[in-house]
Amino acid sequence: MVILTLNCGSSSAKYQVYDWETRDVLAVGLVEKVTVGGSFINHKVKGKEEITINHDCPTHLEAVDLIIKTLTDREKGCIADMPVIGAVGHRVTHGGDRFTKSVIVNDAAMAAFNDMKDMSPLHNPAQILGLQAAKKVLPGVPHCAVMDTAWHQTMPPESYLYAVPYEWYEKYSVRRYGFHGTSFLYTAKRAAVLLGKDPFKTNLIICHLGNGSSINAVKDGCSFDTSMGITPLEGLVMGTRSGDVDPALPFYVMRKTGMSAADAENALNKKSGLLGITGKYTDRRDIQKAKLEGDKTALLAQDMEAHRVKKYIGGYLAALGRADALVFTAGVGEFAFFMREKILAGLEGLGIVYDPGKNAMSHTRNAETIISKPESKIPVYIIPTDEELVMTEDAHALMAGTYDIHTSFSYSFQSRGYINKGRSESLQGELAKNPGLREIIALPK
Amino acid sequence: MVILTLNCGSSSAKYQVYDWETRDVLAVGLVEKVTVGGSFINHKVKGKEEITINHDCPTHLEAVDLIIKTLTDREKGCIADMPVIGAVGHRVTHGGDRFTKSVIVNDAAMAAFNDMKDMSPLHNPAQILGLQAAKKVLPGVPHCAVMDTAWHQTMPPESYLYAVPYEWYEKYSVRRYGFHGTSFLYTAKRAAVLLGKDPFKTNLIICHLGNGSSINAVKDGCSFDTSMGITPLEGLVMGTRSGDVDPALPFYVMRKTGMSAADAENALNKKSGLLGITGKYTDRRDIQKAKLEGDKTALLAQDMEAHRVKKYIGGYLAALGRADALVFTAGVGEFAFFMREKILAGLEGLGIVYDPGKNAMSHTRNAETIISKPESKIPVYIIPTDEELVMTEDAHALMAGTYDIHTSFSYSFQSRGYINKGRSESLQGELAKNPGLREIIALPK
Repeated sequence: MVILTLNCGSSSAKYQVYDWETRDVLAVGLVEKVTVGGSFINHKVKGKEEITINHDCPTHLEAVDLIIKTLTDREKGCIADMPVIGAVGHRVTHGGDRFTKSVIVNDAAMAAFNDMKDMSPLHNPAQILGLQAAKKVLPGVPHCAVMDTAWHQTMPPESYLYAVPYEWYEKYSVRRYGFHGTSFLYTAKRAAVLLGKDPFKTNLIICHLGNGSSINAVKDGCSFDTSMGITPLEGLVMGTRSGDVDPALPFYVMRKTGMSAADAENALNKKSGLLGITGKYTDRRDIQKAKLEGDKTALLAQDMEAHRVKKYIGGYLAALGRADALVFTAGVGEFAFFMREKILAGLEGLGIVYDPGKNAMSHTRNAETIISKPESKIPVYIIPTDEELVMTEDAHALMAGTYDIHTSFSYSFQSRGYINKGRSESLQGELAKNPGLREIIALPK
Repeated sequence: MVILTLNCGSSSAKYQVYDWETRDVLAVGLVEKVTVGGSFINHKVKGKEEITINHDCPTHLEAVDLIIKTLTDREKGCIADMPVIGAVGHRVTHGGDRFTKSVIVNDAAMAAFNDMKDMSPLHNPAQILGLQAAKKVLPGVPHCAVMDTAWHQTMPPESYLYAVPYEWYEKYSVRRYGFHGTSFLYTAKRAAVLLGKDPFKTNLIICHLGNGSSINAVKDGCSFDTSMGITPLEGLVMGTRSGDVDPALPFYVMRKTGMSAADAENALNKKSGLLGITGKYTDRRDIQKAKLEGDKTALLAQDMEAHRVKKYIGGYLAALGRADALVFTAGVGEFAFFMREKILAGLEGLGIVYDPGKNAMSHTRNAETIISKPESKIPVYIIPTDEELVMTEDAHALMAGTYDIHTSFSYSFQSRGYINKGRSESLQGELAKNPGLREIIALPK
């Protein structure tokens, strides 16, 4: 079975095509500038060069149509025809508390996602448009939804409730949902494999650091607490999002500036975070470059981001009591060794002793690495995330009738012998250039 | 010299009269229901029974007048006449970033406090009214202001800045200020005495838990980070305040309910926290009683409060790298052993090993106690706070011309032999009833 995964943003549509039988990624790609003009697709088929095609996509419908046309194109494509696609897995950011696992999208699910629009105004609306578009373009195929919130539904009330009027929870579902759940599921399961432990006896602190960032405290293999909240705005300092602020801050700013509530909320989501501090950067590579060139706001932005992550690591360690490992994942977590260095410095008192040399060596998506010293009570792993694989497996299992919630289901990547074929191939090339990497590769215990 | 300290709330005025020469508290008291009707004064002179006098106080002026009349009354009072009062120390919650230490209140200081009204709408306005009233009633006496924020002015930018547009900081002074500074100063200095350490080589985590609660990370004797922010709303779960929430939460609630920004802010300050969760309680004793009677929301409120404190303790330990002691203070920190138990349970992994028996024994304002086991890497102290003494000493030193910022000034209570006379006397009676208390009393190392 060939499975297509789709992840639609407000002006983008990311996709991957996976052949379940051969365990091969057949193609990956991204349509950019959807709805805003000047849109194009970057498309890469296994074993071929990446290509770019300009194509106007005034709505997500044209974007999905472009993806399917490109995938089934005789020259540029990777599949013979649409019917080859056995299922589509869609990323849905906000599933609220109605979904504890992935589902086949029916009208009720669609209605539920629509209900959640208010809580994830930056993500859900585009994903719903993408879902609707995909259903139109691929009407005969089952569409599955994989929610970022599902993984976190195991959190206990002391983690998920806010200390606000209780009727806000009862009437308006005001609570912590948490996000990046698909990534946390993948990395938590992989960490248990690397530790050689029963996943349900494993405590973890997982830092998913990217343009959006969140941390997850995992207790006995299940999400116990996380830094994002009712929306993805809470928690860490992010690319353009503030993360934690005094709840009175927006009100004060509104009074001082005359800004509307909508403008204040928008500023906290889109003009804050690293962009707010530096005035121009969101990409950690740009910030690192600027810092090395003497830009003081860039240094400040790094210090603020690291200080926040450090506090969450300590906070979750206190809440969990003990952790079997600390894990970094996602773009910044996997590549920005300079940020990991700032985050990990001085945590020896908590039993976290990283190795600066090993840390500096680890910046790859092709291997899982361990960057702590042998004496570190809590080992530090870098586990490149693979949300697409979780989405693919969920869709496949839903089709096969074998799917269940992660506490009653075992993923292929939970086997000790699991190998990501594509990454494993790329790793060979990388090792040729960077043989030291071999020293830090983490293997299952 | 006799020093009067005044702490005005929106409908109250708390006072203490201290004789600097004899180191005696001559009188303490509280005027309640100021401005709201049915006001009265509870007044206690050393060695006499507490008395209550009903007296209408439509404004803070009448309240201060009532305090002075009661203090100078031939029968009920403790001083001969107004001129005996050498200085008045006023508590001011928000001093912004213009004050790093206490000051004699002149017109410029008064103007600055007025500027800060917006940031502390629940506290500063009443305190300004109290200051103005006291200046009218005691025109010939110097009035000193002791700011809750002054102590925290040593925080580094990565602690005090929010990841919001930088111009909000530049134009509107949006930053973390922190509060309860007078209490943290006192307990930090006392902790160093008990540890037998140079205060400026001492790292501490101090939990000031009361109706309003905050935590302070102290690095080398100076405030390094704290949980309250631009206002006293951020951080821990409090009596009626939410503490941390997703910054998008208020906007979502406003959209769902049609509530105005002012109503949402008010709900987060006055209808949230423990009151919001339980629907009726703010006092931890009431919550404990309800919990023991099987009230599930009371248990939930305790779990939520403890979970939040636990996370801050771990977070600050990570940020500090190491801590010489963990300290509890203020009403809940000193008395609510059942809350400390929930907070301290399971922190062994961080090197914090409390003794349940010793913890249960400690509920007194008359002694400093140690409730950790000998093997605890980080000792746990309970240090009853004494903000009035700091206010008194600051006012005295300002009069004497010996005052300076705490990094260049030594308080009487920093001497190894310091004894709080009133508490020491009360302790004798308490020990007679509860001799086990003697086992946990902390003495300077």
